[in-house]
Amino acid sequence: MSKSKRTKIIDILNGDQLGSTVVVKGWVRTKRDSKNVVFIALNDGSVMRNLQIVVDNGSISEEVLASITTGASLSVTGEVIASEGKGQAVELSAQAIQVLGEADPEKYPLQPKRHSLEFLREIAHLRPRTNTFGAIYRIRHAMIFAVHQFFTNKGFLNIHTPIITASDAEGAGETFMVTNFDMEKPPKGADGQIDFNQDFFGKKTNLTVSGQLEGELAALALSDIYTFGPCFRAENSNTSRHLAEFWMIEPEMAFYDLKDTMDLAEEFVRYLVKYALQHCEEDLAFLNKRAEDEDKNKKQEDRRPMSLLESLQFVAEHDFERITYTEAIQILRNSKPNKKKRFQFLIEDWGADLQSEHERYLVEKHFKKPVIIYDYPANIKAFYMRVNEDGKTVAAMDVLFPGIGEIIGGSQREERYDQLTHKMENMGIHAADLQWYLDTRRFGTAPHSGFGLGFERFMQFITGMHNIRDVIPFPRARGSAEF
Amino acid sequence: MSKSKRTKIIDILNGDQLGSTVVVKGWVRTKRDSKNVVFIALNDGSVMRNLQIVVDNGSISEEVLASITTGASLSVTGEVIASEGKGQAVELSAQAIQVLGEADPEKYPLQPKRHSLEFLREIAHLRPRTNTFGAIYRIRHAMIFAVHQFFTNKGFLNIHTPIITASDAEGAGETFMVTNFDMEKPPKGADGQIDFNQDFFGKKTNLTVSGQLEGELAALALSDIYTFGPCFRAENSNTSRHLAEFWMIEPEMAFYDLKDTMDLAEEFVRYLVKYALQHCEEDLAFLNKRAEDEDKNKKQEDRRPMSLLESLQFVAEHDFERITYTEAIQILRNSKPNKKKRFQFLIEDWGADLQSEHERYLVEKHFKKPVIIYDYPANIKAFYMRVNEDGKTVAAMDVLFPGIGEIIGGSQREERYDQLTHKMENMGIHAADLQWYLDTRRFGTAPHSGFGLGFERFMQFITGMHNIRDVIPFPRARGSAEF
Repeated sequence: MSKSKRTKIIDILNGDQLGSTVVVKGWVRTKRDSKNVVFIALNDGSVMRNLQIVVDNGSISEEVLASITTGASLSVTGEVIASEGKGQAVELSAQAIQVLGEADPEKYPLQPKRHSLEFLREIAHLRPRTNTFGAIYRIRHAMIFAVHQFFTNKGFLNIHTPIITASDAEGAGETFMVTNFDMEKPPKGADGQIDFNQDFFGKKTNLTVSGQLEGELAALALSDIYTFGPCFRAENSNTSRHLAEFWMIEPEMAFYDLKDTMDLAEEFVRYLVKYALQHCEEDLAFLNKRAEDEDKNKKQEDRRPMSLLESLQFVAEHDFERITYTEAIQILRNSKPNKKKRFQFLIEDWGADLQSEHERYLVEKHFKKPVIIYDYPANIKAFYMRVNEDGKTVAAMDVLFPGIGEIIGGSQREERYDQLTHKMENMGIHAADLQWYLDTRRFGTAPHSGFGLGFERFMQFITGMHNIRDVIPFPRARGSAEF
Repeated sequence: MSKSKRTKIIDILNGDQLGSTVVVKGWVRTKRDSKNVVFIALNDGSVMRNLQIVVDNGSISEEVLASITTGASLSVTGEVIASEGKGQAVELSAQAIQVLGEADPEKYPLQPKRHSLEFLREIAHLRPRTNTFGAIYRIRHAMIFAVHQFFTNKGFLNIHTPIITASDAEGAGETFMVTNFDMEKPPKGADGQIDFNQDFFGKKTNLTVSGQLEGELAALALSDIYTFGPCFRAENSNTSRHLAEFWMIEPEMAFYDLKDTMDLAEEFVRYLVKYALQHCEEDLAFLNKRAEDEDKNKKQEDRRPMSLLESLQFVAEHDFERITYTEAIQILRNSKPNKKKRFQFLIEDWGADLQSEHERYLVEKHFKKPVIIYDYPANIKAFYMRVNEDGKTVAAMDVLFPGIGEIIGGSQREERYDQLTHKMENMGIHAADLQWYLDTRRFGTAPHSGFGLGFERFMQFITGMHNIRDVIPFPRARGSAEF
């Protein structure tokens, strides 16, 4: 039972173990009876491919063979031999099989057939046992590691910013409250209102919507930092694009201006995409095929603009086009879909907020490259973004990808105390709540910048999955907090 | 202002840039006037050491020099020259200085003197600008990266388990509730009770205390996984050892038995400690000195048993001693501090829970090695731990370190459906709430194991910091959720 005696399937399929006797352990995907032989496809999650186990007639008892059904876990001792079948170079000739755990075929939900993604979402505790989700979680890990590798190589420090916070300064939407009260009878003050001074933290607290503000504090001491942690929004929209709990990567860099930040963002996402192409070839090939099959059942206009692998190459190989918001508006205003009123939201005046349809038009039709738009109107962007000399735009930028639109949003931060407090006042943000943030502008302030990458949005791009609930192991959304 | 023109201080101090003209940016630690020259110590967080900036008389205007005070941020252009002072090989001869942000010496809280850790906790937004916290956060990053590197090298997948959960199955103590209700007027049902069906997730939800159970789901499909995420406990004890929000690393491995797990845990922590010794030499030397100075003001019995660096070497160099709980009890019962009644909790009978004083005695006095205790009494351990053949112990293990006691806790998990449900029933845990967990025992169950390392507890060990609030950037504890 000791793992030291076990060989992982990836090491058998990719290794040079021909003729060795090994022990493999994993879960049965399929069993197929042939004339004088039984074939078992075994998977242990280490790689997309199954290991074919060949059982010669009579070598394993009928009773054991009968209990080997889809989903059962096995320990198999056998010899690695050259395979005559196609699709694999080697297979395992079984000498002994121990069934570690059976899976009643009448009850086990994952039978060897195509299950809908909706059904698999309901059994998210079992879906890592499928090809699709095995591939997604292996790629997700590769991307997590690539994020840390990229920033570590550049001397950035990963900073764990707080999850529970008393500030909702960004005003980024509905937050979740965190409380230790008995909700049936919270303590009340003299005014009859709930007395939050008696709550665990001595005040009202909520789940963070972003680690950026705390990230800035660290950057203004340590130069280059990044966060990689969970963020929360009580989004009421129950769409395929939103989660209530999602992971964000937010680098913050002292002494970076907006151009430096665009350079870093471009280098970063290209690094991740290339890393996936290099390290996840087999899983990506599977998902590419999956996406193609999915598109076959769709109307032409709903199909993806290019295949999954083409999308990744598109980002890996093209320099990103950089245009100002003002230039983007000009292009969009004069575009065919705008003139023919095919955009759902027509672009008329400077100041309009760009929608996904506009972003995708610029990337997929107009430039045929990833696009970075910068210098946005101040009044559609957050309070902490640095005002440009024109007084009406801010040094903000969005990176736009094919099929998905905005994937990164960033900005140079307003480092000037007077401009920042002035803007907070205009936007109704109380300076008293953010004294700690303002302190960094009072003491040794410096130009600095940062951006945010929603990790699940990015994972959708890398895997080609349409529903964001399929790229995180245990999705949280309205009405849904199972497992 | 572009970063492309900036050189980080670590690259100047460690590099070969003698004679080059460079631009450095950072924050002033000290300024010292000498006869014909001004010395400025500049730090940019990239390394512990400051870069000495030498300003010759008359080369920089008096007005600029006057605004250069502790905490101000500067951009300095100068030539890298050999240093005549001790403590550094090179220094920067300033040609031009731009003050990016001043720091009013009357108001800036971080003056060049020793500040208490208590005071620095109150200004946690500025403390990364100190030597101590710069060192801690650089080491913290190195350890985060080492965790990912270790597991990636072994083919483990990082799984993001959910933060918001509807299960409190572990019963690991007080949890925080998460709600989207207006707490002043939550909707009530016909029975007058709050109707949680109307809350965001359609049920009562709380913050996770551990990702283990969800980690097991993934391991029983993908073989080897680890979590690395925030966990939460509404600990009422306001001690130097507890946080309300902390980060946990929890690997789960299919087909591992307890011995495999002890092997992995030992290899893992030794890897981390060696990584720190190799990659964080300068920061550790500083913290080692800091700890020595701290101990000088303490009574002999309150001092650490060995220096910080000795503690790290102790773990790096010794094989861990492995003993059963039963053996540990025998040793402790016959130990001098037990006989002389010097333990606060005397050890009499088998079944007693071990305290930190006992764990430290075994490590520091008896074995003089890190110790792993295994096979604990079932009734002092959690429901999911695998019952041994004796029926009264479980296949659980704790790793004990000098100065700190338990640093890792783990176990083989109960993979047998009947034993698991029987135990849950005895412990009052409703099977209906954990159907998804039990499903993994119904379908293709397999022996599997895992352990948990509290990251901040480990960071205390690595940095020698006594208070756990000093090893996480923004600590959360009762009455404390600032920033």
